[in-house]
Parts: sequence; structure tokens; C-alpha cells
Amino acid sequence: MKITKVRPILTAPDGIALVIVKVETDQDGLYGVGCATFTQRPTLVAKAVEEYLDPLLQGRDPANIEDLWHMMYVNSYWRNGPVLNNAISGVDQALWDIKGKIANMPVYDLLGGKTREAAMVYRHADGREPQEVLENVIKYQEEGYLAVRCQMGGYGGRVKDITAATAVPSKDAPQATHRMKGLDRADSAFPGAYYDADAYARSIPPLFDHIRSKIGFDLFLLHDIHERIAPIDAIRMAKELEQYRLFFLEDPLAPDQIEWFRRLRQQSATPIAMGELHNNPLEWRPLIVEQLIDFVRAHISQLGGLTPARKMAALCENFGVRTAWHGPGDTSPVGHAVNLHLDLACHNFGIQEVINFSDAIYEVFPGTPTLANGYLWANDQPGLGIDIDEAAAAKYPIEIKPIGWTQSRWPDGTIWTP
Amino acid sequence: MKITKVRPILTAPDGIALVIVKVETDQDGLYGVGCATFTQRPTLVAKAVEEYLDPLLQGRDPANIEDLWHMMYVNSYWRNGPVLNNAISGVDQALWDIKGKIANMPVYDLLGGKTREAAMVYRHADGREPQEVLENVIKYQEEGYLAVRCQMGGYGGRVKDITAATAVPSKDAPQATHRMKGLDRADSAFPGAYYDADAYARSIPPLFDHIRSKIGFDLFLLHDIHERIAPIDAIRMAKELEQYRLFFLEDPLAPDQIEWFRRLRQQSATPIAMGELHNNPLEWRPLIVEQLIDFVRAHISQLGGLTPARKMAALCENFGVRTAWHGPGDTSPVGHAVNLHLDLACHNFGIQEVINFSDAIYEVFPGTPTLANGYLWANDQPGLGIDIDEAAAAKYPIEIKPIGWTQSRWPDGTIWTP
Amino acid sequence: MKITKVRPILTAPDGIALVIVKVETDQDGLYGVGCATFTQRPTLVAKAVEEYLDPLLQGRDPANIEDLWHMMYVNSYWRNGPVLNNAISGVDQALWDIKGKIANMPVYDLLGGKTREAAMVYRHADGREPQEVLENVIKYQEEGYLAVRCQMGGYGGRVKDITAATAVPSKDAPQATHRMKGLDRADSAFPGAYYDADAYARSIPPLFDHIRSKIGFDLFLLHDIHERIAPIDAIRMAKELEQYRLFFLEDPLAPDQIEWFRRLRQQSATPIAMGELHNNPLEWRPLIVEQLIDFVRAHISQLGGLTPARKMAALCENFGVRTAWHGPGDTSPVGHAVNLHLDLACHNFGIQEVINFSDAIYEVFPGTPTLANGYLWANDQPGLGIDIDEAAAAKYPIEIKPIGWTQSRWPDGTIWTP
Amino acid sequence: MKITKVRPILTAPDGIALVIVKVETDQDGLYGVGCATFTQRPTLVAKAVEEYLDPLLQGRDPANIEDLWHMMYVNSYWRNGPVLNNAISGVDQALWDIKGKIANMPVYDLLGGKTREAAMVYRHADGREPQEVLENVIKYQEEGYLAVRCQMGGYGGRVKDITAATAVPSKDAPQATHRMKGLDRADSAFPGAYYDADAYARSIPPLFDHIRSKIGFDLFLLHDIHERIAPIDAIRMAKELEQYRLFFLEDPLAPDQIEWFRRLRQQSATPIAMGELHNNPLEWRPLIVEQLIDFVRAHISQLGGLTPARKMAALCENFGVRTAWHGPGDTSPVGHAVNLHLDLACHNFGIQEVINFSDAIYEVFPGTPTLANGYLWANDQPGLGIDIDEAAAAKYPIEIKPIGWTQSRWPDGTIWTP
Repeated sequence: MKITKVRPILTAPDGIALVIVKVETDQDGLYGVGCATFTQRPTLVAKAVEEYLDPLLQGRDPANIEDLWHMMYVNSYWRNGPVLNNAISGVDQALWDIKGKIANMPVYDLLGGKTREAAMVYRHADGREPQEVLENVIKYQEEGYLAVRCQMGGYGGRVKDITAATAVPSKDAPQATHRMKGLDRADSAFPGAYYDADAYARSIPPLFDHIRSKIGFDLFLLHDIHERIAPIDAIRMAKELEQYRLFFLEDPLAPDQIEWFRRLRQQSATPIAMGELHNNPLEWRPLIVEQLIDFVRAHISQLGGLTPARKMAALCENFGVRTAWHGPGDTSPVGHAVNLHLDLACHNFGIQEVINFSDAIYEVFPGTPTLANGYLWANDQPGLGIDIDEAAAAKYPIEIKPIGWTQSRWPDGTIWTP
Repeated sequence: MKITKVRPILTAPDGIALVIVKVETDQDGLYGVGCATFTQRPTLVAKAVEEYLDPLLQGRDPANIEDLWHMMYVNSYWRNGPVLNNAISGVDQALWDIKGKIANMPVYDLLGGKTREAAMVYRHADGREPQEVLENVIKYQEEGYLAVRCQMGGYGGRVKDITAATAVPSKDAPQATHRMKGLDRADSAFPGAYYDADAYARSIPPLFDHIRSKIGFDLFLLHDIHERIAPIDAIRMAKELEQYRLFFLEDPLAPDQIEWFRRLRQQSATPIAMGELHNNPLEWRPLIVEQLIDFVRAHISQLGGLTPARKMAALCENFGVRTAWHGPGDTSPVGHAVNLHLDLACHNFGIQEVINFSDAIYEVFPGTPTLANGYLWANDQPGLGIDIDEAAAAKYPIEIKPIGWTQSRWPDGTIWTP
Repeated sequence: MKITKVRPILTAPDGIALVIVKVETDQDGLYGVGCATFTQRPTLVAKAVEEYLDPLLQGRDPANIEDLWHMMYVNSYWRNGPVLNNAISGVDQALWDIKGKIANMPVYDLLGGKTREAAMVYRHADGREPQEVLENVIKYQEEGYLAVRCQMGGYGGRVKDITAATAVPSKDAPQATHRMKGLDRADSAFPGAYYDADAYARSIPPLFDHIRSKIGFDLFLLHDIHERIAPIDAIRMAKELEQYRLFFLEDPLAPDQIEWFRRLRQQSATPIAMGELHNNPLEWRPLIVEQLIDFVRAHISQLGGLTPARKMAALCENFGVRTAWHGPGDTSPVGHAVNLHLDLACHNFGIQEVINFSDAIYEVFPGTPTLANGYLWANDQPGLGIDIDEAAAAKYPIEIKPIGWTQSRWPDGTIWTP
Repeated sequence: MKITKVRPILTAPDGIALVIVKVETDQDGLYGVGCATFTQRPTLVAKAVEEYLDPLLQGRDPANIEDLWHMMYVNSYWRNGPVLNNAISGVDQALWDIKGKIANMPVYDLLGGKTREAAMVYRHADGREPQEVLENVIKYQEEGYLAVRCQMGGYGGRVKDITAATAVPSKDAPQATHRMKGLDRADSAFPGAYYDADAYARSIPPLFDHIRSKIGFDLFLLHDIHERIAPIDAIRMAKELEQYRLFFLEDPLAPDQIEWFRRLRQQSATPIAMGELHNNPLEWRPLIVEQLIDFVRAHISQLGGLTPARKMAALCENFGVRTAWHGPGDTSPVGHAVNLHLDLACHNFGIQEVINFSDAIYEVFPGTPTLANGYLWANDQPGLGIDIDEAAAAKYPIEIKPIGWTQSRWPDGTIWTP
């Protein structure tokens, strides 16, 4: 059997640019799909697939996934970046999809079979102030969810200074502080969204105090710092939040500041999750080997697909670290399916992030997993069990425009860098 | 182009001896100024410039700052001390001033351009007891400042034992404790100001409790231990102050006690600032590389000028450490200008210490930066944007007399050493 | 002043695809050029510039390089990869070129001025067996070069198994060993160039024994392992070569195997260079901070340009590590100029890799640095001192085809991964 | 008893500027002398004594050395530099001299009494090539010396490029290499003495091979790298020299590169001495506590005198490190006397560097220790047992001119920094 074509498909059913890779073979009707979604730079991934991976792969045997993965990985010599890794991931996941279809087995069966029925998920609740967040938490609890991530006020941000070109998708936050008034933004050389990290940091312990005081401890609560505060402030927050028994505190520190995790670990027993920004083994290996985190949160397509992700899970199992794969709206439904196959097959699974799949999603991606009773369920079809309806996908073209929210700034005008 | 003369200028517009270095060139009217202020030993710095640096530098090309810096640094073979580093700094900053004038650019533009509009500053509030400190804090808050350093009672000191020759410029403090009464100072062999470190250490948490209870948390508060207590007592204080959310706690440990910082970091998440006493790379490098501090507080002229300071900032950026350059009255306005140029150009700027520039300062140093709305603003002129009016400077001669406050002693008569 | 356009230019004067970025301004005739060359994926970099950076940057002030660098760096959220870093580099270097032109100064002057007249370079000599390498070494020595890198036989490779589609540009090597005869490659599922790592490892000490025995020690010799052997074999080779006094041994270990460098350092005093593959701070920071290498070999455009490179140089200076920036044919002449400006300005420069610039290079890139007497010399013009003749560039279009040499395999068919 | 006057005396009997401090008391004829020699900046030390220490100390009790030392140490707030430490040392040693005179005891008796009769010394032999060095070694051996430091060729230097203003006091060296010919120095922007570190490094193992082959191993041999080569090259040299059984290898690494000592210790058993440049506790404490060196080589006046030196010796005794106090021509005879008192009193003494005292020295400094039979002998007089004849001293005025040898450069023009 040979690969005959590798091609990208771009679509945005929910307004987020998704990148899917389809690998076609010379066997009638046999193909696979994989997630290659890098929603901030989708056309680069698509071009990487078309111009570099397709010519490299045509004529190769799709069975030899491990060999092809390494070949793609080093073919560009320079490596480990988000554009190239996503392109590799699209191919890699599609090859696993093909292998499952040939074996007539779901991918989780190829990986060793199920270790659980379904994957416990957490949902995302936010709001402008504690009571609004609480109400959203209760809504999820009533829907049967077992875990909810609580966020508030866009990390102390306000949007009125943001130009049209750099619009931020968060709500108007009430914390516009004294600090922000010190500078007049109207004619600033530094346009963007403004955040007050200190206002944010101070607001979170009272948020959890409010929620725990109302609903008690019989629900897993999570929080995402999203690298929005200074390292020492993240340590301070982890200590302050310890009494609220978080399931985990996510992304407390920048991905290249791994030494700070050692400082964090000396002072706080709040469970730590990290990894959605990871692209390079040096970002995660020390965290796992030194037991500096409790959950890996990698975005699987950013790693280069299922092949590196299952090895990461194996590494984690060695050190008592659990998986919590990244699964927001900028993971395609194909990526969510891959997350789920690993969730079911890996003994050291922790929890799964997920979104509410829209009707448009189900239309474009038949076979998308289903949410029920606080768990995500696979459909047990061969391969990844998910497909893309290309005609439907074409109805939702992507749109390229400058990313606004990553242009966030601190009150004094300094650009935010995680 | 060649250097034709390097000479020091001594002046004390506010009563503090400032040392400025002027580097003159063979290009008509082109010169630069730099800060070389070591206010405890000003005439030694001046003599170092006159007798050693001027003959070494005459005829050299002022463009080659990096080369000249290294040449000055090793010319004395023994190095890294405050006298020699300040002399080098005066030349180094003047050479950057010259380079900016030739380029017709502010120095911050040579360094990579602005990363923010202006530099957030903090002011210094003190008092004899918490209510007096609070009133001074509120006064600054009403003036628009975003951050205030709170000190009280001269670190537990009292002044009645201080001889005229060693007078300390702080107010009379009421904490003369039981411990101090045990010894009769009148005819002591150990004259000086007496401090009670334990009284001081106990007084600070209630100070911050009082202030936070009155004004809340919407103002950045800072505190300076100034190496006045034993290492383990500093660790205890850092823990006690954690709940008051300091912006930073300054100089908790002696500059050569870097190993103690590891102990401090194991127990407290209070942000730590250190560095005004630093002269030697071994004093700061481990603190930064091991993430033992959150802010470097170096006195830039004590490092040897802008050249080493920008490298220190780059080192800090690697490790998530921010800058908070030393900027009290014993930094000249030229030094304040240099602080500000780095503040504007370095992404990892944190906060800037500053003084209220007097009329005499503005008279002697035209172009001194301006304070407004809690920020320090540059004037955007070429070079450092500041000059010295030598005729005005001559109206404020310096006076040399023994330094009193560094003769502080503990209650049993032991001399204080930071 | 505002940026009006940012656009890529692709050209291949020597057959290697180069990517140049041109940043244009609203000031008449003022523009800058930067190197964005990722020769394995050139069109992705070009598209990144066109579709993402151009819209992001139009209307911004080109003076604020540091701010714009950070903005570009985080704009894609996921970061640190070769496609995006090269695109950023193209803009960053062009902004420094513009700043130098505005200041009417060479970029090395903006960076602090010259610390030496010119940059000592090394050249690359290879051959099929020791005598041929020696003859090439002598040829360079006679031309006045002070340092030569000696390679032999394509790392133990042979080319007869390589399909046309994956042709490798090295000479036919005689070391096809016994191990390679065990497998018949003709119908292999694993096409590619075959290398015998053990044959390679055994061949290198005799190579240097031959050369040193003929020419003595009055010439710097270098060698590049290029991550072609197992870690422990690299350690063994470093020990064996110690007696031949290499100037440095390059790329002994894979870029993500930083822990192995600690093992290497325990056993060998052969100087170590590393870094052409580096994209992520975690790849270089521990090597520098722990003094595990002696030279950084980063490819500056892969780091994201001059802005991160000068900070890397400052980091190195703290730890006694020298620079040896990557400068083969897949660095554009603009990139070579940037290397040279840093070489001249940084005190801790070590040596510079360079190529023999062809007539076509000088035609397309007026201002390309010149080689003479074993040193590389800058032309002392404002900015980077180099330009691109777009009409000439258009005469040398790039060609995209699968990369063959990165498909190298071991004798048993395993694909090579550095 | 009170101090009535503290004053410096400058003299240059051998052409090297020496600084002596004389402390006078209100007791008839009782005074002490101390060494404050910082020969590169003598007038700064003198001014520090006159303008700052004299007013601080007048009226104080000379008995309280420990208290006065700490008071002087912190009086300038910024501290640990060579100018201030030397000034302190002059006072400190003079106070010990006074104390000994009052007790009618040699200072070594105050320190605990003799542990040996005299101090084994080493002498310095150099030459342009191995045979010349050997002849000088044999000459010392015949004079009864037990240990000789062997140096050759000025670290690979040549002097013909040195301008009059930067004259270097070394001999013309024959190693002017190919590397130096690459650049024409005549019109260089970087005047100075040029050294070829590689030529130097290669020349030393053959030097010791020659000497050992001629005289065998029955003489202690030493060598001083003087921080003239890169760290890894120092490690390589330490390994190469291991077979020649050096008594110690001196100053292999820069004083602020303490981490590199760990690398050196992993590979070589050559005994290591370090410290003549030390001014700051962080430079020596880790080296001693981690047993990274075998001998401390501190220049006692650079530490601040006898008070810190005896504590350094106590620290060393804890960790099996021996003393080898710095004692070249830029230590005054008073400083040599202090070295000797410590040598006699400390159990963990190793060896003593010394010079051949000239007639002029004995004229100016009556009581200077005597060299005999390979040992340095004290005169057993009260105090330090040495005095200064001020009338004789005045016959040898010092001369201030730019220091040339510290302007050494590498072959490419880079200034040397240890």
C-alpha cells in the first residue's frame, strides 16, 4: 500500500480556523484524517503540508508510522516549532486512523485497549465577578459535570483602550484600576488590550472563597493562570489557593521558566498542570522527571501528533504524572477524538478538557465524540472514528486577521509575554 | 574622532556629594556626561578619573565603548570595587551620551527603542509610628503615585547617643527599648547610632497591618530591611509579611550571604529585591540564575555604568527577573536619566525608585527627567538628554565629613555590618 | 515614522534558497533588509511574513525594535519554531538596519562599537581520505587562513543507495563497510543515504593524527560530529581527539540531550561548540549557565534575529562562553553581515564560520563582507552595510524539492535523527 | 590610649609604587606600620587614608582592632574594592604592629605562636625558551631553594607592536605567530601588547618536560597561568601537566568564573592555587568550602589586612586548604612581614611567594625578613618587626603613568580580561 496524496483542509465551523490533514492511499476509499490545527497561523501549516510533506510522502508505505514520523521530524533539519509540528501531526494522526481502519479497530485498541469506559471532563466557567462565575459553575454542576475551571474578568483586563485591529474576545472587566489611569492610552505608541496582573491576582482567592463557601468541596474546581502574572506572584497564588483544594492550577509559569517550578514546589501542595504551549522536549522532560508538575496539558498536534503524545504519556507514567490533554476550541474535533483515544488507553489519565460541540461541528465532523454525564464518550468505530465532510467544511471558510488577544499589555504599556 | 579630556565635576545641590564625569572630544562642542556618584567617597572617584582614566583615554576613539569599558575595567588589575567602578561608570555613560548625540537619538533608541511610555516609580514614606507612615502613604497616593515604600522609626533606632560627629539624619524614634537601657552610652568606647533589630523586626508586620486595613490592596507597597536583621529573622519577616502582598521586600540579607537566599526561597513567596550594594558579578549572578530574587536593585554606577547594566538586564530577562534600579538621592540626576533610558528599553523592567528633584537639581542639571502621574518621563532629546551647568554646579560645593549612619550599632554595642 | 510594508524576497544565487525580508517606511527611500533564511522551508517563512507579519506591523514605529520583537514573538501564541523565528528575524534585522541608517552608524556602533578590527574565520576542508583532507587544509593555510574545519567521507556515508529524488551533494565515499553489505538496498522500503556511524567514528582520530603529524600545531583545527553518533561514542571521540588540540569539536550531541553534556564534561577537555539547531531558550541556557560548552554556534535567524542574539552573547559573557555564530551557505549574505556586526561588537567573540562568497552573491548582495588574511572585514557603511539588488535576485529563482540529506539512515535502515 | 594620626607614605625603592600606612598614638613614640600597596592606583589609597580614615579614626582606641576593622569596612557603605580594602589593610596591620609592641611580642605570638621555624618559599624563574628557564631553575636550586615557579615567553607575547605609552615590562618573545601576522597593527585602533594564548598554552608542557627530564622530580615546580587562556584550555593544560607533578598550578581561571573550577576538578589532579585578585568573600568562599582549590593565594592587603586574612586561614583549615599568600614585588616589605607572621602561626601553611629584597628595600624598610636556605625567616622583634625610614623612603618617589601590561590583547585585537 502506498500514500498517494497528503492534503490540508481549512475550515472554521465555529469561527476558529481549524486545519485537518487528509492522507489518501492507493487502496480504494482508504484514507485517514488528522488534526493539524494551529489556529493563529493556519495557512502556514496548510502550505507546509502541500509543499513539503506531500512530495516527501507520496509513494511511501502508510504502515510505517514510526519511521515516517522521524523522517518528517528531521526532514526540515530545524525542528520542534508549531508550524512544522502541526503539519506532522496531521499526517501522523491520519496514519493512525488508516491503521485502525485496516485493523478494523478503534485506535484505543491499537494502543492497548480501554482502561476505562469514558473520560472525565472539565468545563470552563467564567464571569465578571464571583457571583456570576458561581452561577455558571452551578449550571455545569446541575448538568452533571464533575469538574469546572473557574475564571473571572479576563485576568484584570479592560477593553476600552483596544483598537479595532486588536480586538480582544473577552468581556468588559470591572477592574480597570487606578494603575491604568496613570497613562493616557488615546495616543499611545503601544496599542493593545490592557491587563492589570495585580488586580487579577488579588481577585482569585476571593473567587474560590465565594464558590467553596456556597457549594462546598464536592466538585472538582480548576483554575488557569495562563502565565499572566510574575513567577513569584504565581507561587504566592498557589499558596493562597491551597485551602480551596484545586484539582489543579494550570500554567502558573512561562514554558521556558522551568527552574521556577522548583521554587513553586518548595512552598505549595496545590496540584500543578502545565503544557499547552509545549513544542520542545526540554520544556516538559525536566518537569516530569523531577516531578515538578502533576498533569501534562500538552496540545497533541503541537507535539507532532499521537506518536510523540503516547510516548509522553509513557514517560509520565514512570513518574506518577497524569495526562490532561489540551482541548479548547482551537483543537479540532479530530484532535478531540485523538485526545479521547489516549484518555481511554492510558492508565495514568487524569482529566480531559473539552468544549461544547456545536451543530456546525457535528455537521462538518461526523463521528465527533459525545458529552454525557460529565464524561466524554467514544463511538467505538474503527480508526479515530471521526471524518470530515468536505462539502460542509467548505461552507465555513477561515478568515485571516491579526491576532488581538496576544497583543495584551500591562498597565504601563509593556507587552505581555507568557 | 578622539577623546581630548576626561574630567570629574563635584557638586552637591541637595547637600549630597554628586560626582559627574565629562568626556570631551575634538569635535566642536561635542561632549558627554556620566554619573560616577559614590557619595561616601566622592573625592576618590574624582581623583581616579583625573589621575588614571584621563591619561589612559586621551586620544582614543569614543565610539568603541565596549572595548574601552573592558580596558578601563582591567587596567587596575584589581577590580570590581566601588571607587574604580564609579569612575568607569562616569566615562561609560558619557560615551553613550556622546554616541546618542552623534546618532541624534535618545540612548533608549540605541538600546532598541521604547517598550513602554514611561517608568512606574515608587516613593518613600516613613514616620515614627504606623499612623504617621499611613498619612504619608496617603499623601503620595493622592498625588497619583502607584507604589510607596513604607519605613518606620529608623530600623528601631534612637539618636540621643549619637555624637555630633556622627549625626544621623533620621527623626527621633520612640522605640528606645529596654535592651538599650542596660548600657550607659554616655562614655562608651563605641559611639554611634543605636538600633534594636528585634524591636524593628516586631514593628513592621503591625505597620503593614495598619496600612492595609486602612487603604486596602489597591496600591503597591514595598519595604526595605536594609540588611538590618539576622538572616533567619529576615526569613521570618518575609513570611509574616506575605499576607500584606508586598510589591517587594528589599535587601533582606547581606550581599555576600547568597546561600541564605536559598533558605528564604524555600519558605516565603514574598517578592524579593536585592542589589544596591552589588559590585561583583558573584553577588548577583547566582541570585538571578537560581531565581532567588525577583528584582535586581543595582546602583548602576557601582556596576561600572550602562554597559554592564544592560548586560545584567539581559541576564535577568533570561530568568524572569525584573529590574528596579537603585535611585535614591545618592544617584545623580544623570544616573537617574540612565536608569530611565534602561527602564524604557528593557522588556523586563519592574519599577523605578526615584526622588523628588529639587529646584537646585533642575538648575544644575537641565534635562532632568520629570515625575507625573506616578511615572517618570524622559525628554526624548538625543543622548541621555541631560546636561550639567558647571557654573550652577560650582555654587553647591561638596563637603567631606565622616559618615555617621554607617556607624550604627546593636544594643550591646556591636557595630552593624550589612 | 511608520512601517509601510514588510515583504519577503526569495533568491538562490548559489542554488541555495535564501529568504530576505525588506521593511519599508514612509520616509523617502528608507528601508532595511534582514535575513530570514530557512533553506529547507523557505516558502513557509515568506508566507509567514506576507500573511501575518506585514498586516501586524504596518503603521508601527520602526524605532521600537524591542517592543516589536516581543509582539511578533508572542503574536502566534505558540512560538520558538524555525518558520516563525526566521520570519521574525527578517523583520528584526531589517529594523536594526533602518536604525543604523537613521543614526548614520554601522550596526556594530549601535551595539557599543568595535572591540576588534575584524573577525577571525574558519574554512571547511573535506575529502575522501586523510591525505585529500590534508591537501585541502594546506591550501587554506597557504591562503592565509588561521583555522580550518576538517571533515571526511560524509560521516561514513555512501551514495549508491540514494534515489534520484534524495540525492546528496557529497562526494562518493569509499567507506561502504561490511555492515552495509548485509542488507540489499535496491528494493528497500527505507530509501535514503546510508551512513555507518562506527566507521565514521573510527576514521576521525587517524585523520587528525595524519594532519597534525604533517603540519604541526600552528593552525587551529576544528571538527563537526553533526550529531551523527551515539552520545557515549561522542564522549569517547572527544577524549580520543584531546591530544590533537581541536579549537572546538562541534555538535557532539543532539540539541535536546543537554544532560549528556554533563557526562561529556566530566571526561574530556576538548572544547565543545553547540547550537546551530537551537530555537528554544531551554536548548542553550543550561549549556551556557552550567559551562557545558565553550562556544555557542547559534544560527541567528533561527533565534529570531539580532535582538535575541545580542542577549545570548551577553548571557555567554557572564559564563566565559564565546560566540561562533553559524555561517554556512544556508545563511544569507545579510545574515553573514549580522554575524560580523556582532563579532566586532562583542568582547566574548570566538571565531566565525564563513563561506567563499561567489560572484553571483556579490551581484545580488552589494556590500557583502570581504574575506582577507584569514579575517572577515566589514565595510563600515551605515546600518548593516549590505543591500539586495532585487532585479539581480530575480535572476536566481529558488526551487523547492524534497530534502535528501536529512533522510540519512544507519546501516540497518534506521532513519538518522540528530 | 588614642589614635592621633593615620597617614600614608608613598615610596618606590625598586620602581614599584608602595603604599605604607603609619598609625600614630598619644603614647610617646608608639606607632605601627601596615601595607596598603595597590601599585596600580597608589594615590587613591593614599587619599582614602588621608581624607576618610584619618578623620574617622582619630581619638579611637587602637586596642579594638576587630571593632575598628568592621567600622572601616562598612563606613563607605559600598565596599570590598581594592582601593578601600588596601586603605583598611594599612590601618589594620599597623594596629596589629602596635598591639605587638605593647605586648612586647612578635605578632605571630599574638596569633598563637610559631608552628614552624621558617616559611618555605618559592622563587620565580623565566626565560625565552626552555633551556633558558632551566638554567634559571638550576641557579635557584643551587642557591638552596626548594621550589621554583617556571614561566616562559610572556604568555606567547611579543612587544614590537606596543606603543611607548603602553610599554610592557616583559622580554621580547619569540612566539610571534602566524596568527599575529594576519592583521597589520601599525595603524590599529587597538594599540597594546599582543599575546597568542594558543602559542603560550602549547609551549608549557614541553617546558616542564624539558626541565623534569634534566633535573628530575626532587624540586618543587610551580606554574602560573595568570588567567591568560580560555577556561577549557586551562583545564586541558592542567591535565597535560599532571604527569610533571606541579606543586601547584596558579590562577587557571578568572576570579569570577568559580563554576568552571568544578569542571576543572572533575578532570585533573594537578593541585590548584587561586586568589591574588580576590577582594570579595564570594570569590574565595565557594572555592574553599567546595574544595575546588588546594592553596589560597590572596594578596593580604587586598582583603583588608591581617584581620580578614587570619579568618580566611581558619576557614581553609576547616577544609584542608593551605595558604600561599601573594608575595611579589607589588607587596611591600611590610606586607611580606605580615605574610610571614601568618606563615609561622598557621598550621595549614603551604608555601610562601617572595622576592629578592634589594639593598634599597633594606634601606627603606629596616627589619625586612631575610631569605636563607630556601626559607624566609622572621626577626622575632615585637610587633611586625619591621619599620619604614621615612627619610630614605623620600629618596624614592613614586611615578604615576598608564599601566601598559594590563592593556594586553589577543591576536585579533580583543583586549585581554582575566
